[in-house]
Amino acid sequence: MTTVLKLGGSVITEKDSPETLDDDALSAVADDVAGADVSDLVVVHGGGSFGHHNAAAHGVTTENGSHETTAVADIHGAMKTLNESVLAHLRDRGVPAVPVHPLSAARRDAEGALTLFTEQVAAMLDEGFVPVLHGDLVVHDGEGVTVVSGDELVVDLADTLDADRVGLCSTVPGVLDEDGAVVARIESYEDVADALGGSDATDVTGGMAAKVRELLALSAPANVFDADGVGPFLAGESPGTRID
Amino acid sequence: MTTVLKLGGSVITEKDSPETLDDDALSAVADDVAGADVSDLVVVHGGGSFGHHNAAAHGVTTENGSHETTAVADIHGAMKTLNESVLAHLRDRGVPAVPVHPLSAARRDAEGALTLFTEQVAAMLDEGFVPVLHGDLVVHDGEGVTVVSGDELVVDLADTLDADRVGLCSTVPGVLDEDGAVVARIESYEDVADALGGSDATDVTGGMAAKVRELLALSAPANVFDADGVGPFLAGESPGTRID
Repeated sequence: MTTVLKLGGSVITEKDSPETLDDDALSAVADDVAGADVSDLVVVHGGGSFGHHNAAAHGVTTENGSHETTAVADIHGAMKTLNESVLAHLRDRGVPAVPVHPLSAARRDAEGALTLFTEQVAAMLDEGFVPVLHGDLVVHDGEGVTVVSGDELVVDLADTLDADRVGLCSTVPGVLDEDGAVVARIESYEDVADALGGSDATDVTGGMAAKVRELLALSAPANVFDADGVGPFLAGESPGTRID
Repeated sequence: MTTVLKLGGSVITEKDSPETLDDDALSAVADDVAGADVSDLVVVHGGGSFGHHNAAAHGVTTENGSHETTAVADIHGAMKTLNESVLAHLRDRGVPAVPVHPLSAARRDAEGALTLFTEQVAAMLDEGFVPVLHGDLVVHDGEGVTVVSGDELVVDLADTLDADRVGLCSTVPGVLDEDGAVVARIESYEDVADALGGSDATDVTGGMAAKVRELLALSAPANVFDADGVGPFLAGESPGTRID
Protein backbone atom coordinates (compact mmCIF):
# COMPACT_ATOMS: atom_id res chain seq x y z
CA MET A 1 0.00 0.00 0.00
CA THR A 2 1.72 3.17 -1.25
CA THR A 3 0.78 6.58 0.13
CA VAL A 4 1.87 9.93 -1.31
CA LEU A 5 1.65 12.84 1.14
CA LYS A 6 2.10 16.42 -0.04
CA LEU A 7 2.99 19.07 2.52
CA GLY A 8 2.16 22.51 1.20
CA GLY A 9 4.96 25.04 1.37
CA SER A 10 2.61 27.46 3.11
CA VAL A 11 2.06 24.92 5.87
CA ILE A 12 5.69 24.36 6.84
CA THR A 13 7.15 27.83 6.15
CA GLU A 14 6.29 31.42 7.05
CA LYS A 15 5.12 32.32 3.57
CA ASP A 16 5.57 36.08 4.03
CA SER A 17 9.14 35.93 5.40
CA PRO A 18 11.81 34.87 2.89
CA GLU A 19 13.38 31.49 3.67
CA THR A 20 11.79 31.15 7.11
CA LEU A 21 10.66 27.83 8.48
CA ASP A 22 7.45 27.48 10.50
CA ASP A 23 9.17 25.23 12.98
CA ASP A 24 6.10 24.58 15.13
CA ALA A 25 4.00 23.57 12.14
CA LEU A 26 6.74 21.38 10.65
CA SER A 27 7.35 19.75 14.03
CA ALA A 28 3.65 18.97 14.43
CA VAL A 29 3.46 17.41 10.96
CA ALA A 30 6.66 15.45 11.58
CA ASP A 31 5.16 14.15 14.83
CA ASP A 32 2.11 12.97 12.89
CA VAL A 33 4.26 11.20 10.29
CA ALA A 34 6.42 9.59 12.99
CA GLY A 35 3.33 8.41 14.85
CA ALA A 36 1.67 6.90 11.82
CA ASP A 37 1.70 3.23 10.92
CA VAL A 38 2.16 3.45 7.14
CA SER A 39 4.44 1.17 5.20
CA ASP A 40 5.30 2.76 1.84
CA LEU A 41 5.16 6.52 2.29
CA VAL A 42 6.47 9.15 -0.14
CA VAL A 43 6.53 12.75 1.08
CA VAL A 44 6.55 15.75 -1.27
CA HIS A 45 6.83 19.28 0.06
CA GLY A 46 6.28 22.60 -1.61
CA GLY A 47 8.52 25.64 -1.67
CA GLY A 48 6.72 28.17 0.50
CA SER A 49 8.91 31.14 1.30
CA PHE A 50 12.04 29.25 0.21
CA GLY A 51 10.94 28.49 -3.34
CA HIS A 52 8.45 31.16 -4.38
CA HIS A 53 10.51 34.11 -3.14
CA ASN A 54 13.60 33.03 -5.06
CA ALA A 55 11.68 31.95 -8.17
CA ALA A 56 9.93 35.33 -8.30
CA ALA A 57 13.25 37.17 -7.85
CA HIS A 58 14.63 35.39 -10.93
CA GLY A 59 11.40 35.54 -12.94
CA VAL A 60 11.24 31.76 -13.24
CA THR A 61 7.85 29.99 -13.46
CA THR A 62 6.67 26.59 -14.63
CA GLU A 63 6.72 27.92 -18.20
CA ASN A 64 9.27 30.74 -18.25
CA GLY A 65 12.78 29.53 -17.63
CA SER A 66 16.28 30.78 -17.01
CA HIS A 67 19.74 29.82 -18.23
CA GLU A 68 21.43 31.64 -15.33
CA THR A 69 23.30 29.45 -12.88
CA THR A 70 22.71 32.06 -10.18
CA ALA A 71 18.99 31.29 -10.55
CA VAL A 72 19.76 27.59 -10.14
CA ALA A 73 22.02 28.25 -7.17
CA ASP A 74 19.44 30.48 -5.44
CA ILE A 75 16.22 28.58 -6.14
CA HIS A 76 17.49 25.00 -6.07
CA GLY A 77 19.83 25.87 -3.20
CA ALA A 78 16.99 27.31 -1.10
CA MET A 79 14.82 24.27 -1.81
CA LYS A 80 17.62 21.92 -0.73
CA THR A 81 17.96 23.93 2.48
CA LEU A 82 14.23 23.57 3.17
CA ASN A 83 14.38 19.88 2.23
CA GLU A 84 17.23 19.32 4.71
CA SER A 85 15.10 20.91 7.45
CA VAL A 86 12.18 18.63 6.61
CA LEU A 87 14.49 15.60 6.57
CA ALA A 88 16.08 16.57 9.90
CA HIS A 89 12.67 16.98 11.57
CA LEU A 90 11.63 13.54 10.31
CA ARG A 91 14.95 11.82 11.11
CA ASP A 92 14.91 13.28 14.64
CA ARG A 93 11.63 11.43 15.17
CA GLY A 94 12.87 8.13 13.78
CA VAL A 95 11.34 8.44 10.30
CA PRO A 96 13.83 6.97 7.79
CA ALA A 97 13.63 9.96 5.47
CA VAL A 98 16.01 10.36 2.53
CA PRO A 99 16.12 13.14 -0.08
CA VAL A 100 15.27 12.99 -3.79
CA HIS A 101 15.97 16.27 -5.61
CA PRO A 102 13.85 16.65 -8.77
CA LEU A 103 16.47 18.76 -10.64
CA SER A 104 18.65 15.63 -10.54
CA ALA A 105 15.85 13.25 -11.46
CA ALA A 106 13.60 14.85 -14.06
CA ARG A 107 13.33 16.82 -17.27
CA ARG A 108 10.71 18.63 -19.33
CA ASP A 109 10.42 18.42 -23.09
CA ALA A 110 9.74 21.47 -25.27
CA GLU A 111 5.99 21.10 -24.66
CA GLY A 112 6.55 21.14 -20.91
CA ALA A 113 5.76 17.46 -20.37
CA LEU A 114 7.57 16.13 -17.33
CA THR A 115 9.61 12.90 -17.23
CA LEU A 116 10.42 11.99 -13.64
CA PHE A 117 12.74 9.06 -12.94
CA THR A 118 11.05 7.06 -10.15
CA GLU A 119 12.84 3.69 -10.10
CA GLN A 120 15.03 5.00 -7.26
CA VAL A 121 11.93 6.16 -5.32
CA ALA A 122 10.35 2.70 -5.63
CA ALA A 123 13.65 1.08 -4.61
CA MET A 124 13.89 3.38 -1.57
CA LEU A 125 10.39 2.32 -0.51
CA ASP A 126 11.38 -1.34 -0.89
CA GLU A 127 14.38 -0.70 1.39
CA GLY A 128 12.15 0.85 4.05
CA PHE A 129 13.10 4.48 3.45
CA VAL A 130 10.70 7.43 3.20
CA PRO A 131 11.73 9.38 0.07
CA VAL A 132 11.17 13.12 0.44
CA LEU A 133 10.84 15.11 -2.80
CA HIS A 134 10.11 18.81 -3.19
CA GLY A 135 9.08 21.54 -5.56
CA ASP A 136 12.22 22.43 -7.48
CA LEU A 137 13.68 23.50 -10.78
CA VAL A 138 13.85 21.09 -13.69
CA VAL A 139 15.75 21.29 -16.97
CA HIS A 140 13.32 22.24 -19.75
CA ASP A 141 14.08 21.95 -23.47
CA GLY A 142 14.55 25.44 -24.88
CA GLU A 143 13.88 27.21 -21.57
CA GLY A 144 16.91 26.34 -19.46
CA VAL A 145 15.32 25.51 -16.11
CA THR A 146 11.70 26.02 -15.07
CA VAL A 147 9.76 25.41 -11.86
CA VAL A 148 8.23 22.04 -11.09
CA SER A 149 5.63 22.30 -8.35
CA GLY A 150 5.09 19.83 -5.56
CA ASP A 151 1.57 19.23 -6.86
CA GLU A 152 2.88 18.27 -10.30
CA LEU A 153 5.32 15.83 -8.68
CA VAL A 154 2.50 14.32 -6.59
CA VAL A 155 0.38 13.66 -9.67
CA ASP A 156 3.36 12.11 -11.51
CA LEU A 157 4.40 9.96 -8.54
CA ALA A 158 0.83 8.80 -7.86
CA ASP A 159 0.65 7.46 -11.40
CA THR A 160 4.16 6.01 -11.82
CA LEU A 161 4.20 4.40 -8.35
CA ASP A 162 0.58 3.25 -8.73
CA ALA A 163 -0.19 4.87 -5.36
CA ASP A 164 -3.18 3.70 -3.34
CA ARG A 165 -3.80 6.97 -1.49
CA VAL A 166 -2.86 10.61 -2.07
CA GLY A 167 -3.09 13.31 0.58
CA LEU A 168 -2.58 17.03 0.05
CA CYS A 169 -2.06 19.14 3.14
CA SER A 170 -2.50 22.87 2.55
CA THR A 171 -3.61 25.84 4.64
CA VAL A 172 -7.32 25.30 3.91
CA PRO A 173 -9.30 22.43 5.43
CA GLY A 174 -10.48 21.19 2.03
CA VAL A 175 -12.17 22.36 -1.15
CA LEU A 176 -14.65 25.02 -0.10
CA ASP A 177 -18.11 25.62 -1.53
CA GLU A 178 -19.58 29.06 -2.23
CA ASP A 179 -20.49 29.44 1.45
CA GLY A 180 -16.98 28.60 2.63
CA ALA A 181 -17.92 25.12 3.88
CA VAL A 182 -15.75 22.07 3.15
CA VAL A 183 -17.11 19.91 0.33
CA ALA A 184 -16.91 16.35 1.68
CA ARG A 185 -16.64 14.59 -1.66
CA ILE A 186 -15.99 15.49 -5.29
CA GLU A 187 -16.59 12.91 -7.99
CA SER A 188 -16.67 15.20 -11.01
CA TYR A 189 -15.62 18.75 -11.73
CA GLU A 190 -19.28 19.77 -12.14
CA ASP A 191 -19.71 19.16 -8.39
CA VAL A 192 -17.65 22.26 -7.64
CA ALA A 193 -17.49 24.20 -10.92
CA ASP A 194 -19.64 27.03 -9.59
CA ALA A 195 -17.66 27.40 -6.37
CA LEU A 196 -14.24 27.22 -8.04
CA GLY A 197 -15.15 29.25 -11.10
CA GLY A 198 -13.14 29.25 -14.26
CA SER A 199 -9.98 30.87 -12.96
CA ASP A 200 -7.01 28.53 -12.61
CA ALA A 201 -4.48 31.30 -12.20
CA THR A 202 -4.61 32.13 -8.50
CA ASP A 203 -0.96 31.25 -7.87
CA VAL A 204 2.21 30.57 -9.81
CA THR A 205 1.80 26.81 -9.72
CA GLY A 206 -1.96 26.61 -10.32
CA GLY A 207 -4.95 27.21 -8.08
CA MET A 208 -7.51 24.90 -6.52
CA ALA A 209 -9.50 24.45 -9.74
CA ALA A 210 -6.48 23.08 -11.58
CA LYS A 211 -5.63 20.92 -8.56
CA VAL A 212 -9.12 19.41 -8.45
CA ARG A 213 -9.00 18.60 -12.16
CA GLU A 214 -5.60 16.88 -11.78
CA LEU A 215 -6.69 14.91 -8.73
CA LEU A 216 -9.88 13.75 -10.47
CA ALA A 217 -7.70 12.35 -13.25
CA LEU A 218 -5.74 10.12 -10.84
CA SER A 219 -6.65 6.49 -10.41
CA ALA A 220 -5.99 6.79 -6.66
CA PRO A 221 -8.40 8.61 -4.34
CA ALA A 222 -7.06 11.93 -3.01
CA ASN A 223 -7.88 13.93 0.08
CA VAL A 224 -7.33 17.67 0.48
CA PHE A 225 -7.01 18.83 4.09
CA ASP A 226 -5.14 21.20 6.41
CA ALA A 227 -2.48 20.42 9.02
CA ASP A 228 -5.09 18.97 11.38
CA GLY A 229 -5.85 16.33 8.76
CA VAL A 230 -2.37 14.82 8.47
CA GLY A 231 -2.72 12.47 11.43
CA PRO A 232 -6.24 11.29 10.52
CA PHE A 233 -5.25 10.84 6.85
CA LEU A 234 -2.24 8.69 7.76
CA ALA A 235 -4.49 6.71 10.14
CA GLY A 236 -6.66 5.77 7.18
CA GLU A 237 -9.45 8.30 7.71
CA SER A 238 -10.79 10.66 5.07
CA PRO A 239 -10.29 14.22 6.35
CA GLY A 240 -11.21 17.34 4.38
CA THR A 241 -12.40 16.79 0.84
CA ARG A 242 -12.19 13.39 -0.82
CA ILE A 243 -11.65 13.58 -4.58
CA ASP A 244 -12.21 10.27 -6.30
CA MET B 1 31.17 16.48 -29.25
CA THR B 2 30.61 15.32 -25.66
CA THR B 3 33.43 15.25 -23.12
CA VAL B 4 33.31 13.62 -19.69
CA LEU B 5 35.91 14.92 -17.22
CA LYS B 6 36.50 13.18 -13.91
CA LEU B 7 38.19 15.12 -11.13
CA GLY B 8 39.61 12.74 -8.54
CA GLY B 9 38.64 13.43 -4.97
CA SER B 10 42.32 13.35 -3.98
CA VAL B 11 43.02 16.16 -6.44
CA ILE B 12 40.48 18.67 -5.12
CA THR B 13 40.50 17.81 -1.39
CA GLU B 14 43.10 17.32 1.33
CA LYS B 15 42.66 13.57 1.49
CA ASP B 16 44.15 13.21 4.99
CA SER B 17 42.02 15.95 6.63
CA PRO B 18 38.32 15.15 6.99
CA GLU B 19 36.07 17.36 4.82
CA THR B 20 38.82 19.76 3.81
CA LEU B 21 38.97 21.33 0.37
CA ASP B 22 42.27 21.81 -1.48
CA ASP B 23 41.23 25.27 -2.55
CA ASP B 24 44.35 26.02 -4.60
CA ALA B 25 44.06 22.78 -6.54
CA LEU B 26 40.31 23.19 -7.13
CA SER B 27 40.80 26.81 -8.21
CA ALA B 28 43.50 25.78 -10.70
CA VAL B 29 41.28 23.07 -12.20
CA ALA B 30 38.31 25.47 -12.33
CA ASP B 31 40.51 28.00 -14.15
CA ASP B 32 41.37 25.32 -16.71
CA VAL B 33 37.71 24.40 -17.23
CA ALA B 34 36.71 28.07 -17.53
CA GLY B 35 39.49 28.70 -20.04
CA ALA B 36 38.63 25.73 -22.24
CA ASP B 37 36.62 25.89 -25.43
CA VAL B 38 34.52 22.75 -25.06
CA SER B 39 30.85 22.58 -25.96
CA ASP B 40 29.22 19.63 -24.20
CA LEU B 41 31.12 19.00 -20.98
CA VAL B 42 30.04 16.78 -18.09
CA VAL B 43 32.11 16.95 -14.91
CA VAL B 44 32.21 14.16 -12.32
CA HIS B 45 34.14 14.53 -9.10
CA GLY B 46 35.15 12.01 -6.49
CA GLY B 47 34.67 12.12 -2.75
CA GLY B 48 38.18 12.65 -1.40
CA SER B 49 38.17 13.50 2.28
CA PHE B 50 34.44 14.33 2.15
CA GLY B 51 33.20 10.98 0.90
CA HIS B 52 35.71 8.35 1.97
CA HIS B 53 36.01 9.54 5.57
CA ASN B 54 32.25 9.46 6.11
CA ALA B 55 31.74 6.21 4.20
CA ALA B 56 34.42 4.50 6.28
CA ALA B 57 32.89 5.83 9.52
CA HIS B 58 29.59 4.18 8.61
CA GLY B 59 31.13 1.03 7.12
CA VAL B 60 29.49 1.65 3.74
CA THR B 61 31.22 0.50 0.54
CA THR B 62 30.10 -0.16 -3.03
CA GLU B 63 28.88 -3.59 -1.89
CA ASN B 64 28.09 -3.27 1.82
CA GLY B 65 25.20 -0.94 2.49
CA SER B 66 23.38 0.75 5.30
CA HIS B 67 19.75 1.39 6.16
CA GLU B 68 20.65 4.16 8.62
CA THR B 69 19.51 7.65 7.67
CA THR B 70 22.38 9.08 9.70
CA ALA B 71 24.71 7.38 7.19
CA VAL B 72 22.76 9.00 4.36
CA ALA B 73 22.79 12.38 6.08
CA ASP B 74 26.53 12.24 6.79
CA ILE B 75 27.86 10.74 3.54
CA HIS B 76 25.40 12.25 1.04
CA GLY B 77 25.41 15.52 2.98
CA ALA B 78 29.20 15.79 2.88
CA MET B 79 29.23 15.01 -0.84
CA LYS B 80 26.64 17.74 -1.50
CA THR B 81 28.80 20.15 0.48
CA LEU B 82 31.84 19.28 -1.67
CA ASN B 83 29.71 19.46 -4.81
CA GLU B 84 28.51 22.95 -3.87
CA SER B 85 32.15 24.06 -3.49
CA VAL B 86 33.01 22.67 -6.92
CA LEU B 87 29.94 24.37 -8.43
CA ALA B 88 30.78 27.69 -6.75
CA HIS B 89 34.37 27.61 -8.04
CA LEU B 90 33.09 26.94 -11.56
CA ARG B 91 30.22 29.47 -11.42
CA ASP B 92 32.60 32.15 -10.11
CA ARG B 93 34.60 31.70 -13.33
CA GLY B 94 31.58 31.84 -15.63
CA VAL B 95 31.16 28.10 -16.13
CA PRO B 96 27.40 27.33 -16.24
CA ALA B 97 27.69 24.47 -13.76
CA VAL B 98 24.58 22.80 -12.31
CA PRO B 99 24.38 19.87 -9.87
CA VAL B 100 23.17 16.33 -10.47
CA HIS B 101 23.11 14.21 -7.31
CA PRO B 102 23.33 10.47 -8.05
CA LEU B 103 21.31 9.42 -4.97
CA SER B 104 18.37 11.21 -6.62
CA ALA B 105 19.06 9.84 -10.08
CA ALA B 106 20.17 6.22 -9.84
CA ARG B 107 19.64 2.81 -8.29
CA ARG B 108 21.38 -0.55 -8.04
CA ASP B 109 19.66 -3.90 -8.42
CA ALA B 110 20.39 -6.85 -6.13
CA GLU B 111 23.39 -7.81 -8.28
CA GLY B 112 24.84 -4.31 -7.92
CA ALA B 113 24.15 -3.25 -11.51
CA LEU B 114 23.71 0.52 -11.73
CA THR B 115 20.84 2.27 -13.54
CA LEU B 116 21.61 5.98 -13.87
CA PHE B 117 18.93 8.30 -15.29
CA THR B 118 20.76 10.53 -17.80
CA GLU B 119 18.00 12.17 -19.87
CA GLN B 120 18.27 15.22 -17.59
CA VAL B 121 22.08 15.32 -18.09
CA ALA B 122 21.67 15.26 -21.88
CA ALA B 123 18.98 17.95 -21.66
CA MET B 124 21.25 20.11 -19.48
CA LEU B 125 24.00 19.84 -22.11
CA ASP B 126 21.52 20.85 -24.81
CA GLU B 127 20.61 23.93 -22.75
CA GLY B 128 24.27 24.92 -22.45
CA PHE B 129 24.77 23.86 -18.84
CA VAL B 130 27.74 21.90 -17.46
CA PRO B 131 26.23 19.12 -15.31
CA VAL B 132 28.41 18.25 -12.31
CA LEU B 133 27.92 14.79 -10.78
CA HIS B 134 29.84 13.22 -7.94
CA GLY B 135 30.61 10.02 -6.09
CA ASP B 136 27.64 9.45 -3.81
CA LEU B 137 25.37 6.93 -2.21
CA VAL B 138 22.79 5.07 -4.26
CA VAL B 139 19.83 2.96 -3.22
CA HIS B 140 20.70 -0.73 -3.61
CA ASP B 141 18.18 -3.57 -3.56
CA GLY B 142 18.61 -5.50 -0.31
CA GLU B 143 21.48 -3.33 0.95
CA GLY B 144 19.83 0.00 1.72
CA VAL B 145 22.33 2.45 0.27
CA THR B 146 25.83 1.71 -1.06
CA VAL B 147 28.63 3.85 -2.48
CA VAL B 148 28.75 4.73 -6.17
CA SER B 149 32.19 5.96 -7.18
CA GLY B 150 32.93 8.79 -9.55
CA ASP B 151 34.74 6.32 -11.82
CA GLU B 152 31.64 4.12 -12.06
CA LEU B 153 29.54 7.15 -12.98
CA VAL B 154 32.07 8.19 -15.63
CA VAL B 155 31.91 4.78 -17.30
CA ASP B 156 28.09 4.80 -17.22
CA LEU B 157 27.84 8.38 -18.53
CA ALA B 158 30.39 7.78 -21.28
CA ASP B 159 28.24 4.95 -22.60
CA THR B 160 24.76 6.42 -22.14
CA LEU B 161 25.74 9.87 -23.47
CA ASP B 162 27.82 8.29 -26.27
CA ALA B 163 30.74 10.51 -25.19
CA ASP B 164 33.53 11.30 -27.64
CA ARG B 165 36.27 11.82 -25.06
CA VAL B 166 36.81 10.80 -21.44
CA GLY B 167 39.44 12.33 -19.16
CA LEU B 168 40.35 11.14 -15.67
CA CYS B 169 42.38 13.51 -13.54
CA SER B 170 43.99 11.87 -10.51
CA THR B 171 47.12 12.47 -8.44
CA VAL B 172 49.35 10.40 -10.74
CA PRO B 173 50.41 11.62 -14.20
CA GLY B 174 49.10 8.47 -15.92
CA VAL B 175 49.30 4.70 -15.79
CA LEU B 176 52.85 3.89 -14.68
CA ASP B 177 55.03 1.04 -15.89
CA GLU B 178 57.28 -1.07 -13.65
CA ASP B 179 59.94 1.68 -13.72
CA GLY B 180 57.48 4.39 -12.68
CA ALA B 181 57.33 5.97 -16.15
CA VAL B 182 54.02 7.01 -17.74
CA VAL B 183 52.75 4.53 -20.33
CA ALA B 184 51.77 6.68 -23.31
CA ARG B 185 49.18 4.34 -24.76
CA ILE B 186 47.30 1.23 -23.71
CA GLU B 187 45.32 -0.73 -26.28
CA SER B 188 44.89 -3.98 -24.40
CA TYR B 189 45.23 -5.05 -20.80
CA GLU B 190 48.24 -7.19 -21.72
CA ASP B 191 50.15 -3.95 -22.40
CA VAL B 192 50.25 -3.22 -18.68
CA ALA B 193 49.35 -6.50 -16.98
CA ASP B 194 52.85 -6.98 -15.55
CA ALA B 195 53.06 -3.43 -14.22
CA LEU B 196 49.57 -3.39 -12.71
CA GLY B 197 49.61 -6.95 -11.46
CA GLY B 198 46.54 -8.86 -10.44
CA SER B 199 45.45 -6.77 -7.48
CA ASP B 200 42.37 -4.65 -8.06
CA ALA B 201 41.87 -3.89 -4.39
CA THR B 202 44.13 -0.90 -3.74
CA ASP B 203 41.24 1.35 -2.70
CA VAL B 204 37.61 1.14 -1.72
CA THR B 205 36.35 1.98 -5.19
CA GLY B 206 38.85 -0.08 -7.21
CA GLY B 207 42.47 0.46 -8.13
CA MET B 208 44.21 1.35 -11.37
CA ALA B 209 43.97 -2.19 -12.80
CA ALA B 210 40.17 -2.16 -12.52
CA LYS B 211 40.10 1.37 -13.93
CA VAL B 212 42.16 0.39 -16.97
CA ARG B 213 39.90 -2.60 -17.67
CA GLU B 214 36.79 -0.40 -17.48
CA LEU B 215 38.27 2.30 -19.69
CA LEU B 216 39.37 -0.25 -22.29
CA ALA B 217 35.75 -1.41 -22.48
CA LEU B 218 34.50 2.08 -23.41
CA SER B 219 33.86 2.99 -27.02
CA ALA B 220 35.34 6.46 -26.38
CA PRO B 221 39.09 7.01 -25.94
CA ALA B 222 40.11 7.88 -22.38
CA ASN B 223 43.11 9.73 -20.97
CA VAL B 224 44.47 9.34 -17.44
CA PHE B 225 46.49 12.33 -16.23
CA ASP B 226 47.20 14.54 -13.22
CA ALA B 227 46.13 18.14 -12.55
CA ASP B 228 48.67 19.46 -15.06
CA GLY B 229 46.85 17.52 -17.78
CA VAL B 230 43.40 19.12 -17.39
CA GLY B 231 44.14 22.16 -19.56
CA PRO B 232 45.87 20.17 -22.33
CA PHE B 233 43.13 17.50 -22.28
CA LEU B 234 40.37 20.10 -22.65
CA ALA B 235 42.43 21.73 -25.46
CA GLY B 236 42.22 18.47 -27.41
CA GLU B 237 45.66 17.12 -26.56
CA SER B 238 46.39 13.66 -25.20
CA PRO B 239 48.14 14.09 -21.83
CA GLY B 240 49.20 11.20 -19.61
CA THR B 241 48.11 7.76 -20.71
CA ARG B 242 45.71 7.25 -23.58
CA ILE B 243 43.53 4.16 -23.22
CA ASP B 244 41.74 3.27 -26.39
